[in-house]
Amino acid sequence: MSSTIKIPQERNFNNLLEQRQISANTLLCVGLDSDLEKIPAQFKQASVRGTLQQFNESIINATSDLVCAYKPNIAFYEEYAGEGLEALKWTIDLIRERHEDIPIILDAKRADIGNTNLPYARMAFDLLCADAITVNPYLGGEAIQPFLDRKNNGVIVLCRTSNPGAKEFQDQTVRHPQLGLVPLYQAVCYQASHEWNKNGNVSLVVGATYPEELIKVREIVGNMQILVPGLGAQGGKPEDIVRALDANKRGIIANNARGIIFAKPQGKETFDQAVRREATKWKDAINANR
Amino acid sequence: MSSTIKIPQERNFNNLLEQRQISANTLLCVGLDSDLEKIPAQFKQASVRGTLQQFNESIINATSDLVCAYKPNIAFYEEYAGEGLEALKWTIDLIRERHEDIPIILDAKRADIGNTNLPYARMAFDLLCADAITVNPYLGGEAIQPFLDRKNNGVIVLCRTSNPGAKEFQDQTVRHPQLGLVPLYQAVCYQASHEWNKNGNVSLVVGATYPEELIKVREIVGNMQILVPGLGAQGGKPEDIVRALDANKRGIIANNARGIIFAKPQGKETFDQAVRREATKWKDAINANR
Repeated sequence: MSSTIKIPQERNFNNLLEQRQISANTLLCVGLDSDLEKIPAQFKQASVRGTLQQFNESIINATSDLVCAYKPNIAFYEEYAGEGLEALKWTIDLIRERHEDIPIILDAKRADIGNTNLPYARMAFDLLCADAITVNPYLGGEAIQPFLDRKNNGVIVLCRTSNPGAKEFQDQTVRHPQLGLVPLYQAVCYQASHEWNKNGNVSLVVGATYPEELIKVREIVGNMQILVPGLGAQGGKPEDIVRALDANKRGIIANNARGIIFAKPQGKETFDQAVRREATKWKDAINANR
Repeated sequence: MSSTIKIPQERNFNNLLEQRQISANTLLCVGLDSDLEKIPAQFKQASVRGTLQQFNESIINATSDLVCAYKPNIAFYEEYAGEGLEALKWTIDLIRERHEDIPIILDAKRADIGNTNLPYARMAFDLLCADAITVNPYLGGEAIQPFLDRKNNGVIVLCRTSNPGAKEFQDQTVRHPQLGLVPLYQAVCYQASHEWNKNGNVSLVVGATYPEELIKVREIVGNMQILVPGLGAQGGKPEDIVRALDANKRGIIANNARGIIFAKPQGKETFDQAVRREATKWKDAINANR
């Protein structure tokens, strides 16, 4: 009798993400921004925790074959303290158990001094067991070293954010030693991708609402993965982001949250069917342009 | 029989802080960065929550007459999920019940797009009942409007952070319409203090480790309060920060965390006595230079 020895592979965010983008043929990421006030009545349970879990499980069941990643934003969970964080952890565990090939990005936009980023890194990667985290670059690369040190975890640096007021500082012209006079977001892009990326675990955030900036970032980073939020409710369109694909026609994590998880049923559709319709629409629209 | 009608006053961060700085004659803020791994053995309880609470109560009892504010950093609590956040809430409640004249700053360095800052603001001000929060300016003033809208709560914007690598972006020269060519941190300072401050609830963070930058920020902001972390363990000194006092010899929230809450007892001193000795030393050293 022959036995199959399963060699345990390290779970690595970038490997997992790329394999998933290929195997499921999708760049779509669903944002689990599960705002309790917007969750439809049929998901309401006696506890906040129960409601968040029931809703998230339903979204995951309706979309798991369509996504390359899930991205819960911790803000919508920690406002309910322990109950919220337990629901978040339960959700991440559920994804890892049922869909071990789908990476999970914790959208937390954290950054503190190095000593304080240690507990934040432990929260994201050891407590919640996310595969990647979003971080803020304002304190510089030295500060976020505790995240960068986790070589199997993705560190996704805010570069050009998707909000209307992003330009206030991100478009300020600065002099960068390699790039010359460029907007701050491009200096952040270069530093993060070239200077902070010793472990090959850095990615960037560029809003779908800024397609020209997205193309500039692609020019600077080459084949790195770029998390692109702002599709759907914020106005970003599939045709805007596909111009920034990498040389392999991948390299984009195309996030839509509100536009999918709070989809409105049409006619006799159930809520789950509406969510699936929207997720399919976005996945296909992105693929159609690749 | 005459009756005294107590008119309920709105609890306002800036008013509370200024009154406390005057009445207790102190600019010292104690950072409740209660790193579980560093808490002395005598405080250890069966639960993480119990340990954090026991330790914080002891720190507060030993220092309450010496401080103008307390500043817990949420990173050291949320790594323990519900238990940690419950201990944090319990600590804030304790301060408000026993010392209603001491404002509490939640050091969270949050910033997301506006829609997501709403739950962060609810967490800080409605769930945890902090009086103020620290925020990151990278996304611009438009994004942090949900914090700014809370007119009785302080919004303390990262300007020049205390970490060694702060200069990577914060020292990049940018052109500001009012200031001309200045380092980015000064542009952030001007925007936060002049453009975002419609409700008079904005303050700034400038590390004690950067005394020259602190003086520049004072020139730009006038009499605004500046939170100055980095005293003690990070190397900031009292004589460095008092040069940046406002016209009333106040306007500084001088934070020391590790240097006070993990003070080492000398000789026959108890831990509480060591904490009190260090807090007194820092309070007096700052006042001696005022």
